[in-house]
Parts: sequence; C-alpha cells; structure tokens
Amino acid sequence: MERFEEKVRASFARQKFMSMLRAEMVSVTPGTVEIRLPYSAEIGQQNGFAHAGAITSILDSACGYAALSVARAEAEVLSVEFKVNLLAPAVGDFFIARASVKRSGKTLCVCTADAIAFSNGEEKVIATMLATMIYMPNEHA
Amino acid sequence: MERFEEKVRASFARQKFMSMLRAEMVSVTPGTVEIRLPYSAEIGQQNGFAHAGAITSILDSACGYAALSVARAEAEVLSVEFKVNLLAPAVGDFFIARASVKRSGKTLCVCTADAIAFSNGEEKVIATMLATMIYMPNEHA
Amino acid sequence: MERFEEKVRASFARQKFMSMLRAEMVSVTPGTVEIRLPYSAEIGQQNGFAHAGAITSILDSACGYAALSVARAEAEVLSVEFKVNLLAPAVGDFFIARASVKRSGKTLCVCTADAIAFSNGEEKVIATMLATMIYMPNEHA
Amino acid sequence: MERFEEKVRASFARQKFMSMLRAEMVSVTPGTVEIRLPYSAEIGQQNGFAHAGAITSILDSACGYAALSVARAEAEVLSVEFKVNLLAPAVGDFFIARASVKRSGKTLCVCTADAIAFSNGEEKVIATMLATMIYMPNEHA
Repeated sequence: MERFEEKVRASFARQKFMSMLRAEMVSVTPGTVEIRLPYSAEIGQQNGFAHAGAITSILDSACGYAALSVARAEAEVLSVEFKVNLLAPAVGDFFIARASVKRSGKTLCVCTADAIAFSNGEEKVIATMLATMIYMPNEHA
Repeated sequence: MERFEEKVRASFARQKFMSMLRAEMVSVTPGTVEIRLPYSAEIGQQNGFAHAGAITSILDSACGYAALSVARAEAEVLSVEFKVNLLAPAVGDFFIARASVKRSGKTLCVCTADAIAFSNGEEKVIATMLATMIYMPNEHA
Repeated sequence: MERFEEKVRASFARQKFMSMLRAEMVSVTPGTVEIRLPYSAEIGQQNGFAHAGAITSILDSACGYAALSVARAEAEVLSVEFKVNLLAPAVGDFFIARASVKRSGKTLCVCTADAIAFSNGEEKVIATMLATMIYMPNEHA
Repeated sequence: MERFEEKVRASFARQKFMSMLRAEMVSVTPGTVEIRLPYSAEIGQQNGFAHAGAITSILDSACGYAALSVARAEAEVLSVEFKVNLLAPAVGDFFIARASVKRSGKTLCVCTADAIAFSNGEEKVIATMLATMIYMPNEHA
C-alpha cells in the first residue's frame, strides 16, 4: 500500500463515527475516495429513508480524505464548509460516497462528491456535495 | 401541548437516527427548534472532536422541524439542500442546534441554525447552517 | 431552431443585466447552456480581476437556462439558491460559464456549472457553482 | 476617519464593477459593512427584477469588506466561496447589503449578509448570504 493510502486509511480508522455508522473505506487513489454506508433502520429519518445527516457524514469524510490523499506528507485536513443537495430519497441497500478533488491549492482544497444509492443492483445519485477543506497546520478557519 | 408541537415531536420521535445519536428535542416554538446532542467518543472524527456529519445531522433536523412548526397542518417537510460552515472544533460536553425560520413561502422554507458547544458552562458557536426545506406533498426536489 | 432553444434565447435577450455585462449565449442543448463574458476593466474588483459577482452572474444565468431548456413548455424558472467556489483569480480575455442539469424534478431542478477563463488560448477553471432552480408557476421559494 | 475605514473605502473605490453598478458604500464599522445598489432597468433579469448576480455582487463585496474591516493592517481579503438564498423577487427602488463577521480566524473569516429591498419606505429581506473569506497574503484557496 502506498504512503498516501496508508495515511488516509489510518486516519479513517480513527473516525469512531464512521464505525458507529458501519461505514467502510472502499477505495483510495490520489485525489479520489469512496466510502460505503450500509442501510439500516437505525440511520433512518421520519419516513425510514437514510437521514440526510448520515449521507452527509460519508460525503464529508470522503471529501476530506480525497483532500488528504493529495496533501503534503505531514499535513492534516479539516472541513471548512460544505453544501449538500438532496436529489432523491435516500432509499437503498447501501450507499457509496464518491469524492474527488476539484482544485488543490496551498491552503485550501475544493472537492465534489456524489452519494449513490444501490438497490437490487440499480444505481441512483441521491445527493451531491461541494466542499472546501483546509490543510493543517494552518488553523481551523 | 399545542398541535404544531405535537406534530413536530411525533415526527422527531420517528427519526431513528436521532435516537442512535442520543439527540433530544429541547424546545419547539412556532418557527424555532432546539435539539441537543451529547458528546461521546462514538461520534468522534480522527482527532476525537465530534464529526461534522453528527453536528450537521442535528442542524438539519432542527431546520426541518423549524419549517414543520410553521407548515400547514397536513404538510410534511423534506430537506432540499443545506450549507454548513464549521467555525471551531466541535469540542464540548454537549451541543445544541438552534434553528429558526428565515422565510416561509408556499412551497419552500429557508432556515438558519447555529450549533453551540457547551463545556463547563461556557458556550461557543461551532457551526452554522443555511438551509432550504420543501413542504410536501409537492415532491422531493 | 428548436422550441426549447428559442424559448431560452428569447428569455436571455430580455435579461438587460446580461447586455450590461456584454455577455452572450454561446450554445443551448437540452440540459446544457454556455454563456460568454468578455473581460474589461469595468467588471474588475480591487485587483483588476473580474469581480466574483460578475462571474456568478453568468453562472447563475447559465444554470437557470439549463433548467429552462428541459422545463415544460409553459414553465418559467427562478433561482432558489446557489453556492459558488472561487478556485483561482478571474484573469483572462474572456470567461465561459458551462452549466448542466444534474437532476430535474417536478418542482425543482439542480444544476452545476463551471466558469472557465480563456487567456491566449489557454483554459482554466476559475469557479464552480451548485444551484437549485424552481419551475414556475409554483411561487418563488 | 479611522484606519480600518480608510482602508475599506480605498479598496472599495478600486472595485470598478461597483461603479458600473452605481453601488455605494453606506457604512463601515469594525465587523460590519453596508453597500447600496440603486435599481435600474439595466440590472434586470427577464422579468425586470434585479438579477440575482447583481444582488450577489453587493452581498459579496459587503462580506469581503466586513472581513477586511477586522483584518490585520497589512492583510487583503479574497472570497473563497459563498452561498446565496433568494428569498423574494428583487423589486425595489434600491437595495442594501448588510454584512457582518460571524467568526474571524487566523486564515479564514466567515460572514453573513442580508440584502434588503426598499420600496416607498418599506423594507423587505430579499436574499441572504453565508460566505467564507480568506486573509491574504496566504494564497487564494
């Protein structure tokens, strides 16, 4: 495993919230990350769909780790801000957040990510994120 | 308890994800909602701070229920989109999301919310949301 | 010229602000629109770069018309909200906003757009938008 | 006039795009700025309302100068990103963008702003912005 992937996977393993959600890191390349979230009733909102907050959680982690995958060796990443559009009800057997780096600067990194629902082998984009990450040490916003 | 509050609390009680996070509804008035999230290591990100996704989850629910508190009796509410700025590390004993309606139209409702961290009796705003909700039946986006 | 293109171009021609900016509609297909903005000192910010507001103006119009290009014949489109990330200084001979529909629902339409700067034949993405549009009659938010 | 106000007004005077829009700086305090935009048919969209891009332009400048008003003496400010919600049609004799600093950090500054339409002495909030600014020298995102 290459250095950037080790670093990303080690940091992801420390995110207890990802374990609570039973989310897993699927893939890491320089500039892209995929995270998988299984559906369960526990993450539901009032209609039983996955809560927008659960979907946002994997989108945010995926964007952060996409940024980290291209960061300098010693740098860390924190979320500055993000916007999420919910495109369809979050119904499915599981969800994948697919993030990629749009532009990486000296201090900031802009990422985009889609959340895709998988049901009986069919895919549907259910949400999309546009996010700004900051490389640390630098301070948090 | 008035009709709007009953409706909001009943819907909140159906959000299993809020139970998973041990989040509680603190208060409901026409146009405002407060939700409380206790800190625990389980909701942490890589540094042990509360994950931005957990904070976003209570901000989103608070905005949605602020919208529902002023909706017509038969209407439901879904999230169209939101933006969150993370203002400081999410460190604290617990967090409160305070949402209020900025403008309620026929179809859409725009809400704002702050997330406040409480540590040893001190308060600090750690995140802020600007969100668009849609009144249903109408379709989801 | 097909019906959707006529409708889009006729509406664009009524946007006096686009004339003030000397912006032109470059292309229209079902679900995509390109608008061109020439650089001039008049649209500058304090450093002489094109003002983020000028770039946002063509991104917003491009997203609105991408939505209109797929709308029902009698529908109009208004902007609900948008987010813009500025990725690099807006330096160039001219700029193109390239918008496309991400998801079109019954009431709302989510669009994305990039702004590209052209300098001496070189292209650079300088900004990106994620926007929500509403089909009217329906009310404005 | 105090130093911070001089610096803000001098930078605003260099924004040619504000002159093109005939926008004026109304007031500057440490952490708040107001900019006034007169309505004219020239800044209209297809229905004659002020274009969202024109409104966004004064919101963005107001947020940037609110950040600059609290920046270190030698620092400049650039926009990282912003989100705008359009709350009502931009109809009025003139518009005021009222910005204030929500949180100022070492590198980034988060601001909020409302755009208010004035018609025959009546006020109406027509748009709201949540924005991230960066203090320079530091690089632009």
